[in-house]
Amino acid sequence: MTTRYAMLFFVTKGRLEAFTDAVIAIVMTIMVLDLRPPAGQGFADLKPVVPKLLVYALSFTFLAIYWNNHHHLMHVVERIDGRVLWANMGLLFALSLTPAATAWWGVHPGDTAPVVVYGLVLLLSAIAYFLLVRALLALHPVGSPLALAIGSDRKGRVSAIAYVAGIVVALFEPWIAAGIYVGVAIAWLVPDRRIARIIEGGEAADS
Amino acid sequence: MTTRYAMLFFVTKGRLEAFTDAVIAIVMTIMVLDLRPPAGQGFADLKPVVPKLLVYALSFTFLAIYWNNHHHLMHVVERIDGRVLWANMGLLFALSLTPAATAWWGVHPGDTAPVVVYGLVLLLSAIAYFLLVRALLALHPVGSPLALAIGSDRKGRVSAIAYVAGIVVALFEPWIAAGIYVGVAIAWLVPDRRIARIIEGGEAADS
Amino acid sequence: MTTRYAMLFFVTKGRLEAFTDAVIAIVMTIMVLDLRPPAGQGFADLKPVVPKLLVYALSFTFLAIYWNNHHHLMHVVERIDGRVLWANMGLLFALSLTPAATAWWGVHPGDTAPVVVYGLVLLLSAIAYFLLVRALLALHPVGSPLALAIGSDRKGRVSAIAYVAGIVVALFEPWIAAGIYVGVAIAWLVPDRRIARIIEGGEAADS
Amino acid sequence: MTTRYAMLFFVTKGRLEAFTDAVIAIVMTIMVLDLRPPAGQGFADLKPVVPKLLVYALSFTFLAIYWNNHHHLMHVVERIDGRVLWANMGLLFALSLTPAATAWWGVHPGDTAPVVVYGLVLLLSAIAYFLLVRALLALHPVGSPLALAIGSDRKGRVSAIAYVAGIVVALFEPWIAAGIYVGVAIAWLVPDRRIARIIEGGEAADS
Repeated sequence: MTTRYAMLFFVTKGRLEAFTDAVIAIVMTIMVLDLRPPAGQGFADLKPVVPKLLVYALSFTFLAIYWNNHHHLMHVVERIDGRVLWANMGLLFALSLTPAATAWWGVHPGDTAPVVVYGLVLLLSAIAYFLLVRALLALHPVGSPLALAIGSDRKGRVSAIAYVAGIVVALFEPWIAAGIYVGVAIAWLVPDRRIARIIEGGEAADS
Repeated sequence: MTTRYAMLFFVTKGRLEAFTDAVIAIVMTIMVLDLRPPAGQGFADLKPVVPKLLVYALSFTFLAIYWNNHHHLMHVVERIDGRVLWANMGLLFALSLTPAATAWWGVHPGDTAPVVVYGLVLLLSAIAYFLLVRALLALHPVGSPLALAIGSDRKGRVSAIAYVAGIVVALFEPWIAAGIYVGVAIAWLVPDRRIARIIEGGEAADS
Repeated sequence: MTTRYAMLFFVTKGRLEAFTDAVIAIVMTIMVLDLRPPAGQGFADLKPVVPKLLVYALSFTFLAIYWNNHHHLMHVVERIDGRVLWANMGLLFALSLTPAATAWWGVHPGDTAPVVVYGLVLLLSAIAYFLLVRALLALHPVGSPLALAIGSDRKGRVSAIAYVAGIVVALFEPWIAAGIYVGVAIAWLVPDRRIARIIEGGEAADS
Repeated sequence: MTTRYAMLFFVTKGRLEAFTDAVIAIVMTIMVLDLRPPAGQGFADLKPVVPKLLVYALSFTFLAIYWNNHHHLMHVVERIDGRVLWANMGLLFALSLTPAATAWWGVHPGDTAPVVVYGLVLLLSAIAYFLLVRALLALHPVGSPLALAIGSDRKGRVSAIAYVAGIVVALFEPWIAAGIYVGVAIAWLVPDRRIARIIEGGEAADS
């Protein structure tokens, strides 16, 4: 790898990260535009805001998880190509649908359709992230830090299955589906130890 | 080129890229604010959201293409002046009209005027990008990587012609115009090989 | 600390700062979307905009204070871990509630509930910042620049008490609570001298 | 100036620039949210959009001018302190009022009050920029590149006078005031040659 290629790579990786950060930051933040202040001026008027706030907190958490995992993932990335750029755009598109799904669910917290649609957006985001990981794995050899860090991606697979289960369950019991989504979020709140482990291992246990 | 000038150049280029990224990221993302959740709470209420979602996906793709091409273009840029800064601002202005055009088309998917206006925004963006490229070519000698990378810019010219054709066709058959826009987007989904080729060629010293 | 670890640290710290900046910048700026132009076209129509503008100015100031303090804090940070990343996300979540609280108060400037809610958002943000500082202190030894810079965090503690006082007072006299919030903002307008002192002291080697 | 101080300075300057860029990018872009698509679906329905589009283009240009000048200004900055950070926040606050003024004027293009308010926002931004320049001059010696670059700041003073004139004239003839604002924008479209000259001079005429 020549110096010039390395510099181009770091520029590309840096700009990809910066762009991803900007989009995720905006997606996270514009959701707050749907936390409209109530028409009245009393505490009782806050009641319809409560479910919106809870759904917002859940969506904020999911987006924070994606930012966190994307950040850890990029640490061990050594190559990027056009397919990676587009897979990343696909992830950003999927994540950008979160505010609309959040807004709908927040207004109709106990209904089936919004909970199904919310689950579909979660599933779409998980698939997009999976495709981004595949695009990166295609560029990195089997023994690379990235390949080791990803491993069998069990957590990602289980999450996708949980989303599908949530979507199906939502057709009968929306509140149980909501519980499944919350459970997945909690499971991910711990940052991806696989990649952290590889990084620390690479440091020869000096951290 | 002295070291100090080089540093100033990299700072300017970096800040120009960062600013461009921020604006494109915001333009991409605020479009989602028009994906308003439906008034009702059933699946049938999603019907008017479908055309909005499709137009949003198309606009997201066009903006992603511009980000991608801008990114590849900047790789081979060696000089920047005031005219480049303003040409870039012109591009950002043109791209910033995308959400309004998207919102109008999404509500009236089969009508003439929104499809014409959408095509005009695409055409304006293409012209602005063309002017940015011209401003850059004026600063780079004939044999420079940038000049080689741009070449005759056939893809850019054909796209502009396609937009004009789409605008004219939309006066009679909006759906055919929509097909033309989608076709241009697909043609650009592949990143600009011309510039990628030059970069890679420069690495192997066989360009 | 190996070179590779140091590089990873600077990348993480840089990306954390950039992401924080993006979210704070968006939160600050989308508040202006609630400064809707009046329906009429005369000067008298501006009257309902005045309280909105004043509350916006106050919220802008609080967010600027957080940006400033976050910036000074990060100067002396030498380590970051997953807990810090999540504590930072918690701070961003708390700050992201500012626009909704601002919008409500701006429409009902003399009412109790909006002033209480505004104070709760201030308090939540202060608690989140406190938890971020704790997460950082857990990573830095007692004599580190960060630990010295934080010290007993008197200003932070007094502010939190003032917010609680403001919330309680607002139940009886909203305008006095507003005065308390403004007072805290003024007290913080001076950048955090503790950290600035440490930095400057480190320069002159007399700390 | 020790190496550590220099690094802190570059970090601060970089983060200040990045934050400023983010806010200006958002302010520029959220204005497009007021370019609401017309209710109807024909070309005639676009008529009320035209004045909005023109005012948006003017505001976009003013913000682009501020970005450009801020960028050139920061090139020659060698020191930053807390006062500079706050003066910069003041500038961002003033600029953030642009979308509201733009939205009001766009709906009532021929009325007095919106044109006066628009001029007041321009004047406020000019004053804030002036205060930022003063804060920077207080940190840089008389013969510094920054001091030489600013000089007597004639263009800035004349612009402020023009805004005052526009505000007064708007009380009688809004359209003439609009012409004055456009004139100032055109005068600034050329990037600040004073600073560019100093930079190029510092390069010993090798650019």
